[in-house]
Amino acid sequence: PVGHGTGCTFSAALTAGLAQGISFFEAAQIAKKFVTLSLKAASLSPLGKGISPLDHLIHLDRLKARYQVLKDLEAAAEFFCSFPVRELIPEVQSNLGYALPLAQKQDEVAAFPGRIVACGERARPVGCPTFGASRHIANVILSALKFDPSVRAALNIRFDESFIKRAQNLGLSVAEFSRRQEPPEIKAREGSTLIWGISAVCSQLGFVPDLIFDRGEVGKEPMIRVLGKDPFEVTQKALKLLSGGPK
Amino acid sequence: PVGHGTGCTFSAALTAGLAQGISFFEAAQIAKKFVTLSLKAASLSPLGKGISPLDHLIHLDRLKARYQVLKDLEAAAEFFCSFPVRELIPEVQSNLGYALPLAQKQDEVAAFPGRIVACGERARPVGCPTFGASRHIANVILSALKFDPSVRAALNIRFDESFIKRAQNLGLSVAEFSRRQEPPEIKAREGSTLIWGISAVCSQLGFVPDLIFDRGEVGKEPMIRVLGKDPFEVTQKALKLLSGGPK
Amino acid sequence: PVGHGTGCTFSAALTAGLAQGISFFEAAQIAKKFVTLSLKAASLSPLGKGISPLDHLIHLDRLKARYQVLKDLEAAAEFFCSFPVRELIPEVQSNLGYALPLAQKQDEVAAFPGRIVACGERARPVGCPTFGASRHIANVILSALKFDPSVRAALNIRFDESFIKRAQNLGLSVAEFSRRQEPPEIKAREGSTLIWGISAVCSQLGFVPDLIFDRGEVGKEPMIRVLGKDPFEVTQKALKLLSGGPK
Amino acid sequence: PVGHGTGCTFSAALTAGLAQGISFFEAAQIAKKFVTLSLKAASLSPLGKGISPLDHLIHLDRLKARYQVLKDLEAAAEFFCSFPVRELIPEVQSNLGYALPLAQKQDEVAAFPGRIVACGERARPVGCPTFGASRHIANVILSALKFDPSVRAALNIRFDESFIKRAQNLGLSVAEFSRRQEPPEIKAREGSTLIWGISAVCSQLGFVPDLIFDRGEVGKEPMIRVLGKDPFEVTQKALKLLSGGPK
Repeated sequence: PVGHGTGCTFSAALTAGLAQGISFFEAAQIAKKFVTLSLKAASLSPLGKGISPLDHLIHLDRLKARYQVLKDLEAAAEFFCSFPVRELIPEVQSNLGYALPLAQKQDEVAAFPGRIVACGERARPVGCPTFGASRHIANVILSALKFDPSVRAALNIRFDESFIKRAQNLGLSVAEFSRRQEPPEIKAREGSTLIWGISAVCSQLGFVPDLIFDRGEVGKEPMIRVLGKDPFEVTQKALKLLSGGPK
Repeated sequence: PVGHGTGCTFSAALTAGLAQGISFFEAAQIAKKFVTLSLKAASLSPLGKGISPLDHLIHLDRLKARYQVLKDLEAAAEFFCSFPVRELIPEVQSNLGYALPLAQKQDEVAAFPGRIVACGERARPVGCPTFGASRHIANVILSALKFDPSVRAALNIRFDESFIKRAQNLGLSVAEFSRRQEPPEIKAREGSTLIWGISAVCSQLGFVPDLIFDRGEVGKEPMIRVLGKDPFEVTQKALKLLSGGPK
Repeated sequence: PVGHGTGCTFSAALTAGLAQGISFFEAAQIAKKFVTLSLKAASLSPLGKGISPLDHLIHLDRLKARYQVLKDLEAAAEFFCSFPVRELIPEVQSNLGYALPLAQKQDEVAAFPGRIVACGERARPVGCPTFGASRHIANVILSALKFDPSVRAALNIRFDESFIKRAQNLGLSVAEFSRRQEPPEIKAREGSTLIWGISAVCSQLGFVPDLIFDRGEVGKEPMIRVLGKDPFEVTQKALKLLSGGPK
Repeated sequence: PVGHGTGCTFSAALTAGLAQGISFFEAAQIAKKFVTLSLKAASLSPLGKGISPLDHLIHLDRLKARYQVLKDLEAAAEFFCSFPVRELIPEVQSNLGYALPLAQKQDEVAAFPGRIVACGERARPVGCPTFGASRHIANVILSALKFDPSVRAALNIRFDESFIKRAQNLGLSVAEFSRRQEPPEIKAREGSTLIWGISAVCSQLGFVPDLIFDRGEVGKEPMIRVLGKDPFEVTQKALKLLSGGPK
């Protein structure tokens, strides 16, 4: 039960917008988004008993988060690349993504603009982490995050039966979707297969598993996505799949 | 008509090997390879009339070539990456390979160990060019080189119908193979599809075309390979396919 | 005339701190810093007539700024490195720094952890911009920022008489300090020469000039620092000094 | 006692040159260099008793060496940068150079075009090793190589008294030169201080020591150069100076 303060929040946000000189219509739109997001945040961590007030601080948190997301990605990628991870890297290379809290759009997910690239027995991140850098990994995270807002990070790795087996032996939850079962009307919309696949898996399971994989299709490499709450958790899960990695 | 000097070359090479302290059997094997390669080189550029003598200098040329191949790859990749080539780079990223004269093995073909990777609107080579760095691009070049020893370089780029059309309009020769037509007994041997595909195209045409593409398969991204005599020719051909590139 | 709201701001900040469970003493210290910074920000851009209220938004701005500072550094360095800047890069290499508004400490100034490094005729940034990455450039900016809070960015470049002349011809303000005139008691404190030199120049001039240089000393390369309000302004000033750069 | 074959080598080389269509004068010059270098190589490793024949293979070796030098530099730099070497890197950054056998010119010494750059607690090579990339390190090696042709590699590191002491404790030979003692007529010639300093040290000692350092001068950072027969030996010596390095 959430909702205290919806009206006054809206009018305060509207006034703030008008004071900045933007049009009434724009200010109203921004105010609406502000209220919606505050409501959502409040529903995740309601305050007190009865009807919880809105969580205005979500906006402040997201400003802080934007910086922290970049620095966490940098640090987690450096950690990951300090291991000989070659066998984890697929032909399309890997990417590590991390979303802002309650992210809804691709440009609220940061990743490496040149991906994480195999080179010799190691891998290296190419470019500095950037919001909006990867459509693929953003779609994976945004779809999972809708089911569980605590899941904000993902890493795609090479598909190999041995990784799946090792994950299951380690007690990680693993789920599969098949690109061929995607309804044709959804397939028609470009870029939607990953969204459909991740969503289908999560809604069937009722939770977001640690690994979601598919066996590929014409023109599409099979792929495993490792999911978790932040890039450190995600890279640690992935390293456990490595034959010689930390167990 | 080639062959003058086969016997004396063999015995000279054999003696040289024995003088270095290796076994008779090994020395004989090395001497045989030496003669075969000298014969091959002589047949490419026969000397004088009648039966041409062997081309001993091929061995010297290959030593020089090893250095030159690396430096040419570096320079050609820098040239290529000075253009906004993003749209040319496939999901699996590109690689640019360059073979030693008369190369026969993957470790006689140099390429970039971390491939040539899209980053923003540009691409960048990852790592310094190295012999044996890429199995894929080596297979492409080695297969083409068997049909035409002057073809020593290749670059794989993203498949797009518009690239094929532009290439044809520019008068480049373009050929296609289908991974599905590969005989199952060949497919059984790992890593052989590219070898089969490139060879099939060239033997059917009777020459090595500028572009060879396939439309992919389950788990395999469709791909265009640009072929040519050196990495400069290859990157220039590829840049011509770019919508905004030099025409 | 600034100061409205000092008391209530302090008590609000104190209460907020206590609510977060930190000790009274700590909360009071944080509240004091909060008030001081708000006062400072208000004095820079006072609101209304009479005694201006505090500028609470400075804290919000700094959170936003932390992210924006990194992204601006990345973009400005990419712009700078798209020119053939080799002749601008000193032996110790360059670095480009950018401070948070009203920064007071080295870890409130971001720069490139591996500097901006000459390679061939170009330069490239090494590593992703990071707060606290450079002591040198942070000292330059922090010293200038004390005189003029709008000066938040600096780039060190190679000393050359021709750069000084070109700057003067372009109407840029140029000033010099001599490491030999630093009072010995200040020199005794490690790392203080740059702070002393920049401060001495600015307090003598009464403003922060575009360029501050020194002619070096035993063990110290002579150096020019280009100063400005943000990394774009700074890199543009530096490019004007380039013989073949944009004029 | 060396010299068998001087005449016939010269005429063979001359004929070879003329056959390639170059002028008599040019061919004679090249032939002379060829003989000189063959003589020098023979004197280093004379063959048989009595007057040794020339070492024609030196030319072949140098062709091979050009490739090998690059690959050894790459591998040694990767090895070096796998340790936390930050404290070894000077303000002007480090470079690692490796010369061809009997090198006489700067473009016969390869090094990293963007040097080896500190970044966080580690360092990384910038660019791929290239002949002629560094004037400084080439001058160091060429000067040492004149005294002892087996010394073909050098690395410059940060000057610190503790490194000097540790080197002496480890039994490494250490020598110093002072830039102030360079005769003014030599100083007049640009770029000659390092040549003078290294030569002075070696001719005084009668051999090339492991470390040569100077304490800097106006505009010049103090510096240690580690010398050795190849880049592996040189980087291993340098790592021993590291407080936490392999002993």
